[in-house]
Amino acid sequence: MRIGIIAPARELDRAIAARTAAFAAIAFPEVDLVFHPQCFLSSGHFAGTDDQRAAAFLEMANDPAIDALWFGRGGYGSNRILTRVMDALGPAAYAKAYLGYSDTGFLLGALYARRIGRPAHGPMPIDIDRTGGDVTVTRSLAWLTAHDRKGLEPSLGRRPAAAFNLAILTSMIGTPWLPDLTDHVLMIEEVSEPLYRIDRMLFQLAHATQLRGIAGIRLGAIRDVQENDPPFAETPEQMITRWCGEMGVPYLGRAAIGHDADNHVVPFGVV
Amino acid sequence: MRIGIIAPARELDRAIAARTAAFAAIAFPEVDLVFHPQCFLSSGHFAGTDDQRAAAFLEMANDPAIDALWFGRGGYGSNRILTRVMDALGPAAYAKAYLGYSDTGFLLGALYARRIGRPAHGPMPIDIDRTGGDVTVTRSLAWLTAHDRKGLEPSLGRRPAAAFNLAILTSMIGTPWLPDLTDHVLMIEEVSEPLYRIDRMLFQLAHATQLRGIAGIRLGAIRDVQENDPPFAETPEQMITRWCGEMGVPYLGRAAIGHDADNHVVPFGVV
Repeated sequence: MRIGIIAPARELDRAIAARTAAFAAIAFPEVDLVFHPQCFLSSGHFAGTDDQRAAAFLEMANDPAIDALWFGRGGYGSNRILTRVMDALGPAAYAKAYLGYSDTGFLLGALYARRIGRPAHGPMPIDIDRTGGDVTVTRSLAWLTAHDRKGLEPSLGRRPAAAFNLAILTSMIGTPWLPDLTDHVLMIEEVSEPLYRIDRMLFQLAHATQLRGIAGIRLGAIRDVQENDPPFAETPEQMITRWCGEMGVPYLGRAAIGHDADNHVVPFGVV
Repeated sequence: MRIGIIAPARELDRAIAARTAAFAAIAFPEVDLVFHPQCFLSSGHFAGTDDQRAAAFLEMANDPAIDALWFGRGGYGSNRILTRVMDALGPAAYAKAYLGYSDTGFLLGALYARRIGRPAHGPMPIDIDRTGGDVTVTRSLAWLTAHDRKGLEPSLGRRPAAAFNLAILTSMIGTPWLPDLTDHVLMIEEVSEPLYRIDRMLFQLAHATQLRGIAGIRLGAIRDVQENDPPFAETPEQMITRWCGEMGVPYLGRAAIGHDADNHVVPFGVV
């Protein structure tokens, strides 16, 4: 099995890529990890120009010899290639899985909106760098290679689901890239934000016309919360409960997703 | 003339309120500035609870003896009173002007969406604290008291316009609170953000289905830009030009609005 890796946002460190490749060679010997050279380009904030990142995505997505596309890391910039790539995907692109999270949620959302392939939210090659990162990355590789359910987010099973970083999800609201999530359990996670910004994003989520039909919300990890001046006086769980009330959808509890080693795989739709 | 002042987000400092009152007493002796006691409340992040801020807004908006409502300052939290106040506005609320900017843009946008009163983006009482703040605040008082055009944003006059902080505008996209801005010149400004976040917000603006009919965009001040790691390699003007191209609307140049002493008044609609 051949898994292609591109970096649609920021560049991937070569040493980290080598560690993921070495780990996969031992733990998943049947897998051939193909790092596209674009992963290691640098252009300002990004892993190559918008054209270079779009071209790498299309090259691998449209290649029938690549069985799945794994995003190497997030950062910022996946949104900037959407118009370049989404109208240029052929039959091979419809047949494969796409796995990533954080900023790459722009691509997962857009693919799911158009029902192209099998998008999934889960650990990326860069996560090998976390403490316990081999276990984290194994969840993604096990799902990509064998649809192994052991690495799936534990609450999955009954209803369709989707997972997003909150800032990425709210950046898609009101655009054609946000998928129809009617009847889906929506899982959200966040990192490196002060609580007032998280509250503002939850406001947009709760008031978004497009999201009125969701089945409920689960809260993933809220990591590295930035200082709020003055203290916000509510916890993330109090906040999500309040906004779910205003939205009129149930808060369903926590989800094992996030910017940490406990991040699990959430295939979009029914699993 | 009586101008009511409330604080729909963060609390107002009493000393600053006193300075604005003292300045107005000399420069605009015909004006009675009525600071609602709610301005000075404190509850966690906010100038009183959501209920207290909503009640103060409604009390002054629905009072026929108050000729205009001036928001004391921004911060975060105006969005949290929208559902409490917008269905409870009576005839007196329709007859008055509403002036503020930054976070209070949530209220200006929602009022304009429902064609309630005369919302305007412009300096607030807290701006007296800036160097040259008396000139800044004079623009708002002159417009509120006499519809004096000297404090208006200089490009205004031919087309309808509206102005927003970019983060506030993008937080309303996809919700019922975003007004119809078809054929409007849209002016945006930002403060205290790194360039990658500004780029991400411009992506949402450029791709927003609701904004497809705008006449063009003007760029206000982009102040206190936070460090971007790595450097973003584009200026705000290059970014807005690129996104306007992707959106298919003209970039019309700069606007004299922003989080600074040069902030001018932009009444929503035609002036």
